[in-house]
Amino acid sequence: MTDIDILVTGGTVVTMDAGDTIIKDGAVAIIKDAIADIGPAGGFRDRRVARTIDANGGIIMPGLINTHTHASMTCFRGLADDLDLATWLNDHIFPAEARLTHEMVYAGAMLACAEMILSGTTCFKDMYLFEDAVAQAVHDSGMRGVVGEVLYDFPSPNYGPIEQGFAYTEDLILKWRDHPRVTIAVEPHSPYLCAPELLLRSARLSDRYNIPLVIHVSETEDEVAQMKTRYNRTPVAHLADIGVLSPRLVACHCVVLSGQDIDLLKAHDVKVSHNPESNMKLASGIAPVPELINAGVCVGLGTDGCTSNNNLDMFAEMDTAAKIHKVSRMDPTVMDARTVLRMATIEAAKVLGLGNITGSLEKGKRADLIVIDTNKPHLTPMYNVYSHLVYAVGGGDVAASVINGRVVMEDRRPTGLDLEKIISEVNRCTGCA
Amino acid sequence: MTDIDILVTGGTVVTMDAGDTIIKDGAVAIIKDAIADIGPAGGFRDRRVARTIDANGGIIMPGLINTHTHASMTCFRGLADDLDLATWLNDHIFPAEARLTHEMVYAGAMLACAEMILSGTTCFKDMYLFEDAVAQAVHDSGMRGVVGEVLYDFPSPNYGPIEQGFAYTEDLILKWRDHPRVTIAVEPHSPYLCAPELLLRSARLSDRYNIPLVIHVSETEDEVAQMKTRYNRTPVAHLADIGVLSPRLVACHCVVLSGQDIDLLKAHDVKVSHNPESNMKLASGIAPVPELINAGVCVGLGTDGCTSNNNLDMFAEMDTAAKIHKVSRMDPTVMDARTVLRMATIEAAKVLGLGNITGSLEKGKRADLIVIDTNKPHLTPMYNVYSHLVYAVGGGDVAASVINGRVVMEDRRPTGLDLEKIISEVNRCTGCA
Repeated sequence: MTDIDILVTGGTVVTMDAGDTIIKDGAVAIIKDAIADIGPAGGFRDRRVARTIDANGGIIMPGLINTHTHASMTCFRGLADDLDLATWLNDHIFPAEARLTHEMVYAGAMLACAEMILSGTTCFKDMYLFEDAVAQAVHDSGMRGVVGEVLYDFPSPNYGPIEQGFAYTEDLILKWRDHPRVTIAVEPHSPYLCAPELLLRSARLSDRYNIPLVIHVSETEDEVAQMKTRYNRTPVAHLADIGVLSPRLVACHCVVLSGQDIDLLKAHDVKVSHNPESNMKLASGIAPVPELINAGVCVGLGTDGCTSNNNLDMFAEMDTAAKIHKVSRMDPTVMDARTVLRMATIEAAKVLGLGNITGSLEKGKRADLIVIDTNKPHLTPMYNVYSHLVYAVGGGDVAASVINGRVVMEDRRPTGLDLEKIISEVNRCTGCA
Repeated sequence: MTDIDILVTGGTVVTMDAGDTIIKDGAVAIIKDAIADIGPAGGFRDRRVARTIDANGGIIMPGLINTHTHASMTCFRGLADDLDLATWLNDHIFPAEARLTHEMVYAGAMLACAEMILSGTTCFKDMYLFEDAVAQAVHDSGMRGVVGEVLYDFPSPNYGPIEQGFAYTEDLILKWRDHPRVTIAVEPHSPYLCAPELLLRSARLSDRYNIPLVIHVSETEDEVAQMKTRYNRTPVAHLADIGVLSPRLVACHCVVLSGQDIDLLKAHDVKVSHNPESNMKLASGIAPVPELINAGVCVGLGTDGCTSNNNLDMFAEMDTAAKIHKVSRMDPTVMDARTVLRMATIEAAKVLGLGNITGSLEKGKRADLIVIDTNKPHLTPMYNVYSHLVYAVGGGDVAASVINGRVVMEDRRPTGLDLEKIISEVNRCTGCA
């Protein structure tokens, strides 16, 4: 038998596999970048192990996957809150973004990667400007990421006219195509900021390279009203009409959906990213997630950017996702803890086209996992591990993290990041020093 | 000038006083149990200081106040979730509570106090059984607490018939009356589980000793319907009718209120405890808090017990409180961060009748304060301290805590608690070892 590079052992293993396998006092064996074996801890006693991570009676589980964020917006965390959308965007966010540079986006993305690693996220999907800087941050931090340059009809502070936006995206695709942790996506902003030609061309590019196509859809009532005026269709129906719906499409937000929209999303196997905290904070509404799941649509969870949340803690997002739908339909049985945890792990991986790569602890998948330290007052006692993970655990309870077979955090210390430098860089770039 | 016992210095002091004073690079001087002075850190340079707590550029603020919990329900955290109310109560919570003992309530309360200290809460209001054990835990842990035995028409697993419930409550009042951190309250469960005679007698007892009267009110539609059938009145109108509304009454939940109910609460200066996460998780509804605040009602925040939350983290509760009302009325400007922070500090103190004691950093008040470590990725950069505290900080970011002039936590280590013993006691009592 081959030697084990890393054995993560001595905890309850929550696999999130199709059978919801849970192994009390289990272990996960990692060889190179992959999960080589999973089973009772005792079964690994005779194996040669190069490095052991002791879960100390805690929980060993797949790393969380954030299906929608704008990582570098960490730079504007708390810059403006509690405002109406137009004031917030026009008076605060857009002016701040007009001053963005590659350097600032890199600094913000590194900060976001540090925050995500420290709170148990091992993979995220990003949409922003200067995304080559975000891909670089994914590379440098050890994270896994799906990143893409935002495309829209008007000139971009990064690439200028849209023609160069497609060139920039294709450069990204070619530059990062062989990277084990970076996936490039094609990312038109939204049906209301992208003409049909832009959307179609984006879809064709996603087809050609077989990569995700990412878009904001039906985030607000205003957007839907605007689309109906312009195209006489809902945003989803408009996308269907021009032929952009596909299994590779990641539709973010999907707050305002008709029954027909849901049928269309299901019929085309479109993936949905649900962002409850952002939708609440911006007063966009509550996405019909129970209906989407009932219809068989694959839904993953995401935090959105730090200006509308204001953190990247997927544990907090799970807690909110579980609660908001209960109260919005006055039914405490909807969105049970296991369903919500799936939305942050295996379903999220499927949303990003990474269902065979990450999102669950299964032999042969890449080794993306985290360890939760449960030896704390607020995690005592433990009756049900799913309930704990959704309703009681916070990002600060993550003790260790492994991404693609590499230990990126142990004992809450990120192994490859200079936190002091990352923090001071953002403070310098934003003038908050 | 008298020597300073403790100087908490080197951070942004957020006072939560009437003028919303914020002092950059400020300090708080403590002598004995009280705040002796507050001002710029430089002003204390020549003073003799016995002990210094360095906030290291972080935030110095009043400790958070949890206006409604059932501390010992930590014992049942995650025992049963995602169920309808009747199944949850009848099949899980009530059977578990029937086996409660003084010893188990003490163990659960000590666990809760540890969790609260570790997450920045310095004062809480409790309602449960065997409350002498909770008062003892408040004493032993160093917390500040308002505690009271739950009273209702049927026999209690603690005191038996209601007659002995009043005797038990009066014993508590006499036993703890001179304690600097323990306040005893009279706590009839609710208008639907307490006959008018029980409510009136409770009110008279609260009058006689000038102590808080605590009750659950209008938590669910069902309760309101039941009260209308029985008394032809809403729960609030019923309480008004029998003469129980007063400035000392703490009405918990207040989810289902009519405009007339709000007028009555205001007219009698009744205090309200808002528990959004519990109301969401149990699908009770969303309390009309913006309307209550607009009407001038004093509203504090609370987590409710760990079976319906499932933690005691007031920072998480603030985040939810700020967001849920925005989405429920589709207005991102309601419940701004400063308003929400007031609900967890100074307004909460007023709710519990402790407005002159705690809830803000002001000269002469008891020294109940916490220090937030902001030198972390998820708290970078900082544009607005209120936004950070509500939308980004979590309980795990609290570095130090002082209650009644005593340091109860420093560098995240509780100074007077044996965490290992506290955790193992609850695991033993609940059979979760």
